[in-house]
Amino acid sequence: MLSGGLDSSTVLAIARAQEYALYALTFDYGQRHQTELQASRRIATSMEVKEHIVAKIDLRAFGGSALTSDLEVPKGRTEEEMTEGIPVTYVPARNTIFLSFALAWAEVIGAQDIFIGINAVDYSGYPDCRPAYIEAYQKMANLATKAGVKGEQNLTIHSPLVDLKKSEIIQRGLELGVDYSQTLTCYDPVENLACGQCDSCKLRLKGFAELGQADPAAYARI
Amino acid sequence: MLSGGLDSSTVLAIARAQEYALYALTFDYGQRHQTELQASRRIATSMEVKEHIVAKIDLRAFGGSALTSDLEVPKGRTEEEMTEGIPVTYVPARNTIFLSFALAWAEVIGAQDIFIGINAVDYSGYPDCRPAYIEAYQKMANLATKAGVKGEQNLTIHSPLVDLKKSEIIQRGLELGVDYSQTLTCYDPVENLACGQCDSCKLRLKGFAELGQADPAAYARI
Repeated sequence: MLSGGLDSSTVLAIARAQEYALYALTFDYGQRHQTELQASRRIATSMEVKEHIVAKIDLRAFGGSALTSDLEVPKGRTEEEMTEGIPVTYVPARNTIFLSFALAWAEVIGAQDIFIGINAVDYSGYPDCRPAYIEAYQKMANLATKAGVKGEQNLTIHSPLVDLKKSEIIQRGLELGVDYSQTLTCYDPVENLACGQCDSCKLRLKGFAELGQADPAAYARI
Repeated sequence: MLSGGLDSSTVLAIARAQEYALYALTFDYGQRHQTELQASRRIATSMEVKEHIVAKIDLRAFGGSALTSDLEVPKGRTEEEMTEGIPVTYVPARNTIFLSFALAWAEVIGAQDIFIGINAVDYSGYPDCRPAYIEAYQKMANLATKAGVKGEQNLTIHSPLVDLKKSEIIQRGLELGVDYSQTLTCYDPVENLACGQCDSCKLRLKGFAELGQADPAAYARI
């Protein structure tokens, strides 16, 4: 599952390093940050995936999140403010929906491994970014598929970033040759540039700063 | 979750009889039987739901089923043939995807109950129609939501038809005043009429026959 952001691009590089055949799935879900989709195409091309599908699903029908509705994306928050409760950028059941599409595609192509770039450290406020959630999803997924009927438990959901800090994720990606100038992490880009002010931009910039590295992505303002 | 077919329409009547506020969710998923969508609108209107959303999702991107691709829908099969293995009409991960959208909407409107018309008796070949699957889904769903973060287990997935034969489902629906002439069950309708020959039509007709009742729906051919 490839959003075109820093995390999922790193996960793709991890799967590539483990010599998996790569099938990338991106969602056009009515997000305000449509430039994400362009980033996902750049990354998929540069990582030479076998196939890249952009699945269109309309989460706006349900509303409920700043990422898909008219609610304002918070800017310039401190890290303390970010970790208070569940942010308005949380999209209800988003990872559950995304994983379900990945499961469908996996069954069609016979894949047994799904990779997702969720992270419990920097997004502790998102319920569907926790290891217990992923474990429960995997159990359900193995019952949902043809293989499950035969009692085979053969589907694994990999979340290699789940316990890593942002700086550790970036470190891993740099080791694997990820070109982070191609990725876009921002919740609310300004004329295709990252805003530099939303929670997602701030966490990313802090990660690079902790490594003493410059973020190669272009920002409207830092 | 309302497809406009016999099962989900009966489930809607069951939820109504239990005095739930009704929110109906239908999927336009590229199915060949688009007349289903018209049936869902008729049923939603006659049952006086508070809101009816038709969510558009494109499962054709993944292929893999006779319901969404060019594979042929089997006709005139015996019941023995129907229960051999997983049918080509199985859509990979369909219920998992549908439930995930229901979960998103439930979270937005604050609903704690999701009703689904799955049935393990007549569709024993579908992995995602089994009680063990629904149990695992409910567990995952409770971890996926905001309430789950607080340790609350407050989402219930109701599958009131899961252990019923088709004739028992129809009996229950007739008691609750379901107008089955408005429903459409067919996998492959002919000019908006049920074909009378696919597995789904044959199971439905057999259910009515066992009750000594005539099916009020219009058929192209029986």
